[in-house]
Amino acid sequence: MNNFVFENKTRVIFGKDSEKSVGSETLKYSNKVLLHYGGGSIKKTGLYDRVVKSLKEENIEIFELGGVLPNPRVDLVREGIELCRKEDIGFILAVGGGSVIDSAKAIGIGYFYDGDVWDIYDYKVSVDKMLPLGVVLTIPAAGSETSPGSVITNVDKELKRGFGALCMRPVFSILNPELTFTLPDYQTACGISDMFAHVMERYFVPTKNVDLTDRLCEATMKTIINQAYNILKNPMDYNARAEIMYCGTVAHNDSLDPGRGGDWASHEMEHEVSAVTDVAHGAGLSIIFPAWIKYVYKENMDKFIQFFTRVFNIEQDFENPENTVLRGISTLESFYKDLKLPIRLSEIDFDSSRVDELAKKASFDSSRTLGAFKVLNKDDIKEIYKLAL
Amino acid sequence: MNNFVFENKTRVIFGKDSEKSVGSETLKYSNKVLLHYGGGSIKKTGLYDRVVKSLKEENIEIFELGGVLPNPRVDLVREGIELCRKEDIGFILAVGGGSVIDSAKAIGIGYFYDGDVWDIYDYKVSVDKMLPLGVVLTIPAAGSETSPGSVITNVDKELKRGFGALCMRPVFSILNPELTFTLPDYQTACGISDMFAHVMERYFVPTKNVDLTDRLCEATMKTIINQAYNILKNPMDYNARAEIMYCGTVAHNDSLDPGRGGDWASHEMEHEVSAVTDVAHGAGLSIIFPAWIKYVYKENMDKFIQFFTRVFNIEQDFENPENTVLRGISTLESFYKDLKLPIRLSEIDFDSSRVDELAKKASFDSSRTLGAFKVLNKDDIKEIYKLAL
Repeated sequence: MNNFVFENKTRVIFGKDSEKSVGSETLKYSNKVLLHYGGGSIKKTGLYDRVVKSLKEENIEIFELGGVLPNPRVDLVREGIELCRKEDIGFILAVGGGSVIDSAKAIGIGYFYDGDVWDIYDYKVSVDKMLPLGVVLTIPAAGSETSPGSVITNVDKELKRGFGALCMRPVFSILNPELTFTLPDYQTACGISDMFAHVMERYFVPTKNVDLTDRLCEATMKTIINQAYNILKNPMDYNARAEIMYCGTVAHNDSLDPGRGGDWASHEMEHEVSAVTDVAHGAGLSIIFPAWIKYVYKENMDKFIQFFTRVFNIEQDFENPENTVLRGISTLESFYKDLKLPIRLSEIDFDSSRVDELAKKASFDSSRTLGAFKVLNKDDIKEIYKLAL
Repeated sequence: MNNFVFENKTRVIFGKDSEKSVGSETLKYSNKVLLHYGGGSIKKTGLYDRVVKSLKEENIEIFELGGVLPNPRVDLVREGIELCRKEDIGFILAVGGGSVIDSAKAIGIGYFYDGDVWDIYDYKVSVDKMLPLGVVLTIPAAGSETSPGSVITNVDKELKRGFGALCMRPVFSILNPELTFTLPDYQTACGISDMFAHVMERYFVPTKNVDLTDRLCEATMKTIINQAYNILKNPMDYNARAEIMYCGTVAHNDSLDPGRGGDWASHEMEHEVSAVTDVAHGAGLSIIFPAWIKYVYKENMDKFIQFFTRVFNIEQDFENPENTVLRGISTLESFYKDLKLPIRLSEIDFDSSRVDELAKKASFDSSRTLGAFKVLNKDDIKEIYKLAL
């Protein structure tokens, strides 16, 4: 186990009707709030009205900025920063999923930076301050509701980049599983794939002697699988929705990886795929992850045997250990297929001639490597994209 | 799953040499510190000198209060409160195990209460403020380094009482596993028993649909068992010490029980045992818990089958399910015996004629019940003590 510092100050308010406390929680920080949201589904479901009512009951002045897209764009972030500065807004409230929260975080850190906010996502400057941010979560997936990270897309440059700093954790996050009853099946599935990937990224590391965090990761992954099938059976199952919603948080609140670090190569590779295809992040991950496993498993086969026996209950083949892994990969792909997610690039609108270009982008033109479990250079990345075709 | 609010702001600084940061972490809060510790073992190991050096490097003024006993006494707490008030001390630094931390917490809350601090532990007043508290942990056991609870003994009244409030979490806790190398075997074992019990108290609840937290509890218990045997084999095994130390924290930082609550009957029953025998808390728990299980398992046998199959790898007997539980109880007792802990009251200095008196005390003279998995009245409690004889 490595030395580590762990700190997560986000207050999680979980359960039925929990959004009713949004006004009182917000007022602890400011009486002027930027209400940030997406394409307007929160208006259809009535959530918008309930949030506004709760804020108004506390006499909080509301400034609105809707229109966040999946794979949130830096242009809207710039708009939000301007608005917060002009109106002297002291708090951002993100009502939505990971895209809305990530966009809100970008506004919150960009607010304190004099240059263009993309500089931050281009790793040119560091960050130690963010406008306080509250969340009402509607999509369990990205884990951004308690994580210190944010992923923003620059359409002009066809780039999607993640950035994180400890100051970027929300001060509170409100999670009501009932808000997820009406999610389209595909979006539910993409969320499940995303949170599952967040755990795998932490699980597959070269760090040794990480017994507890291995097992905490396995516990979370087993629950995700188990409850995913409960939701497939009945999307209105409150208990299954609650488990999945909280799994999404635990998967990314850093309680699963103290002292071990993460890999994150698959995430980086997926970002390039969704930057050029606009495929949902979770659907990109269900394509990239099996290919990544196929390419790297020989690096430490025992770790994959542990993964597939403990998480997927594959019986270990002591005579031919590799068979355990191969059978496991099939089972993982079946899990994704049961969720109606793609497992090959050929299933989405992807131009296979762009493989080299993507590998170039993901490796910053061969100037960086990806991953930790196996360190990947541009050629490795290209091979993984090819395995995913 | 029940609705819940989860918040844990303690900063955990973990690993080799981590105590070197104690000065700079403390200075964030105050330049006058109460240095609180136990019987002086920290002077023998050199830890005291390292802590004082780090504090002095930051020009922090130190006021000392040593002499905390296992099962910490309210008398010393009163002394600490007086000292903090007299010297206008702004920060308490607890260097030691759970007893020292619990004593420090009592000082920190008593500081803000005009009456006698025992009133708080007698549940006569509530608490919403504590002097900021930092910890350098030397014994992985009580979990007090990130928990909001504290247990204090009143010798005059032969009472040991726990009290908790969210403001009672330390602001930081420093955990260096190397500091635990020199712990006597018995103390290591008691710590392991204590943290294992903290997870069991959270695991055995009547709340349904708690898949994730069930599995997180199981992950932690499996790790505790696994690493306990590694320490038995080699007390200088850094990795095993690190796993156990962090397990002790996770077991009691409330990340394992959001939305499910706890039982805590065994803890309350143990407190009465150690109040009259001064047995170490962990050794009291290894006596009480098997007796508690024997008395309550028929309440929900499936839960115990889940526990013993998943945590102890007992094969499920589908023909005679009860056998799974009975075999499991034996295995749990064997685990305690391997740790050289007692599993019967007859093994410690306990006067069996006091069973009724203890049941009376634990039930506040039949005015309260204990537990949640099975609600226990005075007669139930007495039966459990008898099963433990």
